[in-house]
Parts: sequence; structure tokens; C-alpha cells
Amino acid sequence: MPANVDLPGRDLRSRIASGDPRAIARAISLVEDEGAAGADLIREIYGKTGRAYLVGITGPPGAGKSTLVDRLIAKIRSEGQSVGVIAVDPTSPFTGGAILGDRVRMSAHAFDAGVFIRSMATRGHLGGLARATSDVALVLDAAGKDVIIIETVGVGQDEVDIIRTADVSVVMLVPGAGDEVQALKAGIMEIADIFVVNKADREGADSLAQSIVANLSLQTFAPGEWRPPIVKTQATADVGISELWTEIGKFRQQSSATRATRQRARQEYRFRELLSHQFLQRVERSLPAGDLDRVFDRLAARELDPYSAAAEVMEKIFG
Amino acid sequence: MPANVDLPGRDLRSRIASGDPRAIARAISLVEDEGAAGADLIREIYGKTGRAYLVGITGPPGAGKSTLVDRLIAKIRSEGQSVGVIAVDPTSPFTGGAILGDRVRMSAHAFDAGVFIRSMATRGHLGGLARATSDVALVLDAAGKDVIIIETVGVGQDEVDIIRTADVSVVMLVPGAGDEVQALKAGIMEIADIFVVNKADREGADSLAQSIVANLSLQTFAPGEWRPPIVKTQATADVGISELWTEIGKFRQQSSATRATRQRARQEYRFRELLSHQFLQRVERSLPAGDLDRVFDRLAARELDPYSAAAEVMEKIFG
Repeated sequence: MPANVDLPGRDLRSRIASGDPRAIARAISLVEDEGAAGADLIREIYGKTGRAYLVGITGPPGAGKSTLVDRLIAKIRSEGQSVGVIAVDPTSPFTGGAILGDRVRMSAHAFDAGVFIRSMATRGHLGGLARATSDVALVLDAAGKDVIIIETVGVGQDEVDIIRTADVSVVMLVPGAGDEVQALKAGIMEIADIFVVNKADREGADSLAQSIVANLSLQTFAPGEWRPPIVKTQATADVGISELWTEIGKFRQQSSATRATRQRARQEYRFRELLSHQFLQRVERSLPAGDLDRVFDRLAARELDPYSAAAEVMEKIFG
Repeated sequence: MPANVDLPGRDLRSRIASGDPRAIARAISLVEDEGAAGADLIREIYGKTGRAYLVGITGPPGAGKSTLVDRLIAKIRSEGQSVGVIAVDPTSPFTGGAILGDRVRMSAHAFDAGVFIRSMATRGHLGGLARATSDVALVLDAAGKDVIIIETVGVGQDEVDIIRTADVSVVMLVPGAGDEVQALKAGIMEIADIFVVNKADREGADSLAQSIVANLSLQTFAPGEWRPPIVKTQATADVGISELWTEIGKFRQQSSATRATRQRARQEYRFRELLSHQFLQRVERSLPAGDLDRVFDRLAARELDPYSAAAEVMEKIFG
């Protein structure tokens, strides 16, 4: 066996634990492949995870997420903590920019072993984006990253669920996008632990912040309950980043119960996905060859409806 | 029983078949509830579906989808065909505008019984957006709508998959968004049967069209294979809509084999989702009370990893 081939196993595990970027990259590829080797790896590292703090950051295209994350990395690094970043949007047909963004960022932190940045394809995961993201986070966690930032464009359900189950959820908005108030109405209030109004030097920043305040004032908060603060930033000028990091720290201190609840929600969500996936694999394996195809033929011919078809397959599997 | 309560049953089915908007709305609510009544309804109407032609339209926020769809409805209606519209983006935190857009559109077509427009929440479907969208399309199909337009913002994987399995997939782009070429690189070419360059009077429209052509020229097309045309539109001025409808008609004529393939893919995708959903329900029902909670406790305590936990649950279910 050539010496330069990385194989999963004790060596890879110990190299991940030591934070070796090549080992991390290799491990992430393994879990992204969704094969047995990735599952074995997660099995082995899982006991060593749970230390990292997961920061979810979401915002519309053009909100300046990449720049903000970049500045936040610098801030976190200045405090001596290591950072992993998972950017979940590169294969979106309309936000292909992440691939480029990734390269730019990579070069900014290229010589810093305390930073690891990975783009995640939103497609090609058979619907298992949450599972894949979660596994990548586990790898970064096992690699000793103190903070893991998960960044999404937050439009799809999967992406929103991923952010919602992070330890802290940061929602970015920018003035002048025109539909902020509607965005707020459409359920964003539930997601945010912290609001960021980026490009805060732009006209409309104050009124955007005010509309967030107005919306928050409609909610009732229990005594001592966290009330989402609004942080004004100008990421390109490095303004407001320290304040954001301070608020994240406050949330972290105040919300260990919330964190436990979310970790559990995250694990449950991910576990259900994994079970579904394994069940479908079992269905494919255990039905006689051609059985599923015949079901699909009858669905296509409208001889059978999907609910009756599902009942039929369940009956075959469970008897 | 009060006479003004709609109950599913023969009466609802016949009212759906007659195109009664209140019955359609009621039926859609039933299938969106994902309960037994919705499943029963689908079971009953399924044999009468398969007639409608599904047009998927996707594009980034701000591409002018609502306006284009609105004009397309008018065009289709002018030919005497009826239309159902499913707008899949209202609960996206950043595109809350669909709720408003829906109202505006509704009023434009409010007195036309040949048009039915429904917004679909992207959240609250337990990951089953494709299942829910597909069921709503079946209702509109059973209600005799000739054309069903499914419109999404197309960023999440679910949304893209929904459009990909429509009978024809229309991808909208606008000049000046800055990242068109990257969007093209990032996999959009595979989705589109027809490209629309909207806001074609804007600077950059020609170069956007050219970059699409350049990208298409890199693909190989078999003799007689459909080659995605580029239609320039100015939806607000009703320019290019007839041309778009003509291209959709051409695609429809030329691609009955494609249509059969996609219907099948759609049914398969949807069927797998339904199976997963039913399996998870069975897991919840058949495990002793508290069993899953104990699994989650052990996951949280890192005593158990998700893959081993899944193996454990599968063993309990299947013995």
C-alpha cells in the first residue's frame, strides 16, 4: 500500500484529534460520501465530541454573510480560540458565489492552522443535508475546534432547520432590501437569538432596527428569558464585530439549558433522517428485484395511488 | 351535523371534480394536514389525475417570477385553458413577500373560476415539502386544471427537486445580478428545459443570454434532443410571454418520453418520502414508551453514537 494514501483508522483519528487540516479534509470527504467508512469514523469520534460551540448564521443573499464570518473568525482567533466554518450554499443554482468566496477566505486564513473552512454542497445528499452538515460539524468538533460557524442562505427548510438547532442562531438583515418587515412577519422572529443589521451605515438601517424592536415588543418574554438583541455591524469596515461576539458570549452564558434542548433537537432531527435513510436502503435490499419498479409502473398507470402503494410495501416489509 | 361543514367524502370529490374553488381549498387544506383524511382523499382522486401539465418555474428572488406567472396565467386563460398555481416560498424567512404577492394575484384573477392560486408553506411539512406539493398538484389536477404552475425561489434542495421533476422546467435569470455565470456553472444547466432572461430591456441582458449560449455549447446534445431555448421577456410590459408559452408548447410536443420519465421520477421521489414518513410513524408507535427518549438521552450524553443508535432501533423494529 502506498504510504501517501490516507486510510481511515487509528491514524486518521489521531490526526483529526491533533487538528491536522489534511486529515480533517479527508474525514469530511468520508462522511460526505455517506458510506460505511464515514459511519465508522463518526462512531469512533462521537465520544470525543460535544465540546464545540455551534454558531448558526443566516441571512439573505447579499447580506454580507461571508465578510461578517471572515471578521468574526479574526475576532475569535484574536482570543486564541480555534474556528471551523461550514458554508452551506455553494451548489444553490443562484448563489454559486460561495465557491469563489471560499477561495478568497481560504487565502485570508490559509496559514492559520486554527481555522478550517469547508463548503457544503446543498445537493447530492439525498435530502440528508442536515445529516451531512451535522457529521461535518462532528468532525470539526473532534478536531478540537472551539467554535463552529455554520453559515447558510437560509431559504430552504433544511437550511433553516440547521440554523435553528445551532447553539446560537444569528439572523442577518440589511436595510433597503425592501421586504424586511415581511421577512419578520414570515416567521424569522422564532429563529433568531441575535439579530444583526449589517451595512448599518446605509439609509434605512435605523428603521429596520426599529421594526425588529417593534416586532419583538409583540412577543412576551418570561422574566429572565433571553430577549434577542440587535447588533448593528458594518462588516467590511470591521465595525460591530466585537459587539456581536460579546452578545454571542452572553447568550452562551445565559442559555445552557437552551443549549441542551437544542443539542437534543439537533440529535433527534438528525437521527430521524438517518433512520429514514437506513429504512429506504433496507426496502431496496429486501424487496425482490423489480418489485419496486412494478409499484412505480402501477403508480404511473394510475392503477395504484401512492398511499395504497406505501401500505402495500410496508405490509411486505413488516408482514 | 351543521349543513355548512364540509366533510371529505363523495360530495367533496364531486365538488373538486367540478372545479369548485371552495372544495379545492378545503381539499388542499386536508392534504396539507398530512392526516388520514388527506390520504383518503388522494386515494380517491388519484385515478382521475395525470391529465394536467406541470410547469415548474424557478429563479432567484427579484427575478420577477410573480409577474411572469401572472402574465402567463393570462396567456393560458386566453386560450381557454384553466390554470392552477402553487407558489412554494411564502414561509421562507427572507421572501415573505409571497403572502402579499398571493393577495395581489388573487385579486387579479379573483373572478375567474378557471384560475386557482395557492401558496405553500415551505416549513411545517416535516421535511415533506415534495410530498405536500405533489399532493396539492394532484388536487388541482383532479379539479380539472389543464396547466399547473409550480413556482419556487429554487434555493433549497427540496425546491430544486420539485422543479426538476415538473413536466417542463423553466429557469429565470435577470441581467445585472452579477453572478449569472457562476450560477450557470453551479449546476443550473441541468435543471433548465427553457431559460427566461427577464427584464430583458436592462443592460447586460444580451451578455447574460450569450453566456447561457456559451454554456449550452459546451454540452453535447443527441440528434433530435431538446436544446434549451432562451426566451427574453419583460414580464411587467407583457413582452415575450407568448414566445415563452410557445416554447413550453414545443417542449411538450417533443418530449412525451421525457415527461413519462419525469412523472416516474416525481412519483418515486414522493413515494420514498411517504415511505420514510410512515416508517418513522411506525417507529414511534411500535417502540415501548420512553425507548426513543432513552436513545436520545444516551446520544446527548455521548454514550451512544447516532449510527450505533440507528442500528439498535432498526434491530428492535426488525428483530
